Amino acid sequence: MHHAADILLQLFIVYAAALVGGELAQRLKMPGVVGEIIAGALIGPSALGWVRPDEPLQLLAEIGVVLLLFAVGLETRLGELRRVGAAALGVGVLGVVFPFAGATLWAHGSGFGWDPSMFVAAAFVATSVGITARVLQELGVLQRTESRVILGAAVIDDILAMLLLGVVVSLQQGDRLDPLHLGVLLLEAIGFLAVIGFVGTRAARLRSDWLERPINPLSPLTIVLALCLGLAWLSTRFGLAAIIGAFLAGVIASETRQREQLEHQMQPLLALLTPFFFAVTGMQLKLAVFADPRALGMLAAATAIAIASKVLGGFLGALSLRPRSALIVGVGMVPRGEVGVVIASLGLAAGVFSDRIYALIVAMSLLTALVTPPALAWLLRRAPADDPAA
Amino acid sequence: MHHAADILLQLFIVYAAALVGGELAQRLKMPGVVGEIIAGALIGPSALGWVRPDEPLQLLAEIGVVLLLFAVGLETRLGELRRVGAAALGVGVLGVVFPFAGATLWAHGSGFGWDPSMFVAAAFVATSVGITARVLQELGVLQRTESRVILGAAVIDDILAMLLLGVVVSLQQGDRLDPLHLGVLLLEAIGFLAVIGFVGTRAARLRSDWLERPINPLSPLTIVLALCLGLAWLSTRFGLAAIIGAFLAGVIASETRQREQLEHQMQPLLALLTPFFFAVTGMQLKLAVFADPRALGMLAAATAIAIASKVLGGFLGALSLRPRSALIVGVGMVPRGEVGVVIASLGLAAGVFSDRIYALIVAMSLLTALVTPPALAWLLRRAPADDPAA
Repeated sequence: MHHAADILLQLFIVYAAALVGGELAQRLKMPGVVGEIIAGALIGPSALGWVRPDEPLQLLAEIGVVLLLFAVGLETRLGELRRVGAAALGVGVLGVVFPFAGATLWAHGSGFGWDPSMFVAAAFVATSVGITARVLQELGVLQRTESRVILGAAVIDDILAMLLLGVVVSLQQGDRLDPLHLGVLLLEAIGFLAVIGFVGTRAARLRSDWLERPINPLSPLTIVLALCLGLAWLSTRFGLAAIIGAFLAGVIASETRQREQLEHQMQPLLALLTPFFFAVTGMQLKLAVFADPRALGMLAAATAIAIASKVLGGFLGALSLRPRSALIVGVGMVPRGEVGVVIASLGLAAGVFSDRIYALIVAMSLLTALVTPPALAWLLRRAPADDPAA
Repeated sequence: MHHAADILLQLFIVYAAALVGGELAQRLKMPGVVGEIIAGALIGPSALGWVRPDEPLQLLAEIGVVLLLFAVGLETRLGELRRVGAAALGVGVLGVVFPFAGATLWAHGSGFGWDPSMFVAAAFVATSVGITARVLQELGVLQRTESRVILGAAVIDDILAMLLLGVVVSLQQGDRLDPLHLGVLLLEAIGFLAVIGFVGTRAARLRSDWLERPINPLSPLTIVLALCLGLAWLSTRFGLAAIIGAFLAGVIASETRQREQLEHQMQPLLALLTPFFFAVTGMQLKLAVFADPRALGMLAAATAIAIASKVLGGFLGALSLRPRSALIVGVGMVPRGEVGVVIASLGLAAGVFSDRIYALIVAMSLLTALVTPPALAWLLRRAPADDPAA
């Protein structure tokens, strides 16, 4: 009972801090998510130390980001994603190649061997689309072409990052590279997305009356939430992030007749749960990195490479759009967030990373998450929508 | 990452099972909560063994029941609670005295010494109002006088059960009883409820425009959710259950101008989170108790005493209402649910209870939770509302 009470206090502190942080950020004309991340960093272990990002908070954070991507999927039609498919593919591929190449060279130049350099670089690759998705949703621009390209590219980015991480880990362990195995992984992931995506959306379009057959008036919501949890788990079985499955579940649910009602009902769920995701993200920041001038210099270099390489890759990949839209796409792909933190943790566990390089990568990941929202909001507010009807 | 994936699978199984169980129960004209509890028992460790009620599920269960009682509070005005104060006090006091006396005598008759008998009896005392609250909400009868008496009595019941448990534990440890200390605990709890209740509702009535000052359109919801988490925690600091604080937060929020909007926004939150509470409750059932005929006989006796003593206490306490309404109140107080489970765990940890008596008390608690919803629904559907306007 006491333990449960402690957790309630933690939840209260985190939720209230995120509330205040989000509000302050919005008053300073910044996306609320920036305030939530900073609030998390302030109450977390490396500043005030009021809360630690342990298991209960991690769980709520995970559910929060899963529901966020589900809600974003709910505002995304499969047809619209397919229409931007070529641009999304270009952004996804170049947005992986450029950061990986740039970061490998940088790490090798900083004194790492080639194999560990590639492990470091793997942490520079994967975009954490949660942060961008939240900004797009806050600004109400999920219907813009740039948003769709970003979301489609995030799916491709996740597949490539998964494969790349597999390669890097096996190189690190001294295993021989097995192209056949990688090919199977790639086909499985694409097959999973294609089968679930096409069959699911078709079933949803034809059979959305099934959602109302149960007695309970909230049954459409509960059924699609079960679908969301199920696909989130299933996508991890194919090596993909849980949020990719959740996004897919949302895309499927967006084909149902109950779409608008569902969008409406997701709002309170996001209001309760997503602040935990962003605050927990902030909590993982180790502020001590910023105390040592030499480390600070390395951090500045790493962050600059992470940002520039991703913006460039995204920009070049999206050049079928107008240049300004391509820039928005590039900036939208910048956040590494919790994905970089996870890869850094793998490197630490594998003994490849020292504590210092671990802290550096975590700080780089979170800095990219922090600088993106204001930049993206600034660009989006200045750029008129390309084709609001499409 | 793997660990997070496992948890997602657990969440999916529990949520989907509760969905199916609730739906089947409703088709059989029973409250959905019965199906959710049985679904939990079936997938839990003592039957199929698909999931275990470990920390992540316990956390969601706790948040679920906290939000449920908050939503119930949101449909309850303080003035209405005060109007039924005398009846609620009678129900609360007699609903503690009768079960405690009955269960002490029964346990002593079954061969326990007086002190352990009183510890056993303590597990028979406290009502778990979550189950009843869910039934009242499902049937849409929270505005009826009987519902208000039950909710008011649940608050009093919780105070008395807290004091009683303190007495029993200190007797068991051979400490001398300290009436002064108990008096202080009682005054603290009452003081907490009175101060927060009166000051909070008054502030809410006069200043509900404050909820809309923040920029975020969802801010009234997020602010009252923070209040809910904060008071849930604070009430545990005064020895009370978290759900009492959450209920109080709801009562405060029910005085705001945004009350209807908040009620509406709580629905998706309850749809996501309360099934975890009821399924986890069911998971704690040890079906093995039902295999041994002698244990089954003891369980039947214990459950009969638990039900009869609580119904009688509630009925006599509420006789200022019509007899049928008093019966509804008595039946509504019957569920012990997770509160009995917690006290049984304390007894097990203190070495007072054997594994068998522990399993017996857990099974008794959950049986009372299972039999109440159909009985209560049956009575409420048959009894016309006493005074729907009051």
